[in-house]
Amino acid sequence: MSESRAISSHTEMDAEKFKEPFSTYHMLGGDDTHSYAQNSEYQKQLVVSAEELICKLIDKHLDIEKPSFDPNKTFRIADFGCSIGPNTFFAIENIIKGVENKYKSNIKNPRIPEYHVFFNDHIDNDFNTLFRNIPTSRKYFLAGVPGSFHGRLFPNTTLHFAHCSTALHWLSRIPKEVTEVNSTAFNKGRIHYGGAAKEVKDAYSTQYRKDMDSFLTARAQELVRGGLMVLVILGFPDGVPPSESSIGIGFNILGSCLEDMARMGKITEEQVDSFNLPFYYPSPSELKALIEENGSFTLERIESLISPMKIEKPNLNIIIKVCVSHLRAVIGGVIEEHFGNEIVEELFQLHMKKLDENPMMFDEKYRKEANYFLFLKQKSHL
Amino acid sequence: MSESRAISSHTEMDAEKFKEPFSTYHMLGGDDTHSYAQNSEYQKQLVVSAEELICKLIDKHLDIEKPSFDPNKTFRIADFGCSIGPNTFFAIENIIKGVENKYKSNIKNPRIPEYHVFFNDHIDNDFNTLFRNIPTSRKYFLAGVPGSFHGRLFPNTTLHFAHCSTALHWLSRIPKEVTEVNSTAFNKGRIHYGGAAKEVKDAYSTQYRKDMDSFLTARAQELVRGGLMVLVILGFPDGVPPSESSIGIGFNILGSCLEDMARMGKITEEQVDSFNLPFYYPSPSELKALIEENGSFTLERIESLISPMKIEKPNLNIIIKVCVSHLRAVIGGVIEEHFGNEIVEELFQLHMKKLDENPMMFDEKYRKEANYFLFLKQKSHL
Repeated sequence: MSESRAISSHTEMDAEKFKEPFSTYHMLGGDDTHSYAQNSEYQKQLVVSAEELICKLIDKHLDIEKPSFDPNKTFRIADFGCSIGPNTFFAIENIIKGVENKYKSNIKNPRIPEYHVFFNDHIDNDFNTLFRNIPTSRKYFLAGVPGSFHGRLFPNTTLHFAHCSTALHWLSRIPKEVTEVNSTAFNKGRIHYGGAAKEVKDAYSTQYRKDMDSFLTARAQELVRGGLMVLVILGFPDGVPPSESSIGIGFNILGSCLEDMARMGKITEEQVDSFNLPFYYPSPSELKALIEENGSFTLERIESLISPMKIEKPNLNIIIKVCVSHLRAVIGGVIEEHFGNEIVEELFQLHMKKLDENPMMFDEKYRKEANYFLFLKQKSHL
Repeated sequence: MSESRAISSHTEMDAEKFKEPFSTYHMLGGDDTHSYAQNSEYQKQLVVSAEELICKLIDKHLDIEKPSFDPNKTFRIADFGCSIGPNTFFAIENIIKGVENKYKSNIKNPRIPEYHVFFNDHIDNDFNTLFRNIPTSRKYFLAGVPGSFHGRLFPNTTLHFAHCSTALHWLSRIPKEVTEVNSTAFNKGRIHYGGAAKEVKDAYSTQYRKDMDSFLTARAQELVRGGLMVLVILGFPDGVPPSESSIGIGFNILGSCLEDMARMGKITEEQVDSFNLPFYYPSPSELKALIEENGSFTLERIESLISPMKIEKPNLNIIIKVCVSHLRAVIGGVIEEHFGNEIVEELFQLHMKKLDENPMMFDEKYRKEANYFLFLKQKSHL
């Protein structure tokens, strides 16, 4: 009797586990001019910069002699926050290359496993487009996994390798306090914590800590013993306030565009006050502390990747266009959800105009953001 | 050296394995009046009829004491040809109920495994709608798997239970001969093998044999030793020619609508001649022979389910409407692909009109189709 009750309550808990309690931010779908697929060159450059590092670190840390990594069994890889391609496919191919090299290097048994690849993103992600974009030359079986990566998405000990690139700066939700008129953290007239009161920054960073903790805990459960994880996280070096960076300046200009539109009566003041961007940019010390505190992973490597913006130097007009297109692909959905889709075109036109008039944020001295590459290993004691 | 060459050719073969050489038929997406989601009551009734049988047979045949079915490991279930819901969710819940009962019945270790459920359909299936339809109260992790079930979709020994309901009458392609003007199997003026020359029927049945063989072989590789499979297959009892059934009569009437539209100059005669429906309806003897010949499974049970059409008896007008809506949801995509989407509305209006004038096919005596429920077990020697 008590046994059957134990099972049934376990089952209810299970059902709870599969609910989606998080906001469902997603990239713009399809393949048109404003889509993410057409505006993700920046992310692609990052994938390329991470390539060599990943191969080297897989070679060093993949325990192919452990039973979990038996080449006769399937090797499972997941990309969290994959969007609709094509960058996720480059990342996966790169991981497979690294894994394959490692298995082949085993002189006694150079057998390679079969790969099962899982592409995860929010339930509102355009999986139809993702599936149509999948390379026909792939060497893996695959599946799409809808749901928030802040919660569990796989059974225990399913994955051998987890990957998540430039997705973890998305918060699972906007901290409540920053939208509450009576809170000391109310973020009036701003759309981000950059340059805002300390209470606003604290509310954002508290939310980020919670989100990262959920992410790490969920992944540690889903990974096999000694499973590997690569994170590429957009952040700022220690001591650099985002308000003095191109990202912060860009958000402030976007905020001022929204205020202009409120003055023109196209949206309300309250709508602007209650709008906040769901992004947080941690510093490397914050990341190290978070991982330590969570305790599920050892951090085998953290380093800053070459900033993709610095690789090529096209002229300013092109940079502005690319930058606005990119921002629209990324946050167009969030803007639409809060303000309705009627204002989106006008807002980004206005944003482009203001950046043309005041291109300060593109000055080299404000390029302070960094992409942190983290290589983690699940602690075997779990 | 020779070893590394062996690996690389294995790798090329692998890449070949993941290509999609099949036609991509799919149900109409979305949630509107003509969608599959709104027109699949028939299939739902079948799922319900199969419910009790599945539970009983799982209890009898699931080897929970074998290592492959260790409750500490994930139990993986796939539904092949899932479309966009909701029937696939009922089927999965039912399978999980049966599996759970079996595990709980083990007095010594009533532990239940975690479930990982895979929803498969063609790459053009509307996975976005499928994912939005997923019940929030589910007790399983899940993924969507795009691709033809006539080929491999999972790594070796991945699945514990495979399910496929009313999807296997879809051929992977139209047999070439039936569209070739100079072939003896050219199916001029008809859109199906019902009532056609023997050569046409033979071409269809040969294609069906190939398709079922690929399906069974792929599933046998994907299932673990002793893995179970339920198929619900639309067919006809031995000796019943489809031309004398409501299905055959309905297709002939649809064919005559297309000929009418050709006479009106809305489509060409050649378009009609080259159009054939990709459906084949086997008999139970054919199915038994096919499974025997393939050799990967033992057939533990085959029986005919209660025909859902007989369960309720609404008036004829409603039946005709439901029937045309259902047919449109199922074959609308195929018609659109061959003739363009302009004719679809008119064609089905015409079809409805002709059925109103001549409702012969709804006469009880022509209800000869049957839904065969097959319960198979992967042979452990594989």
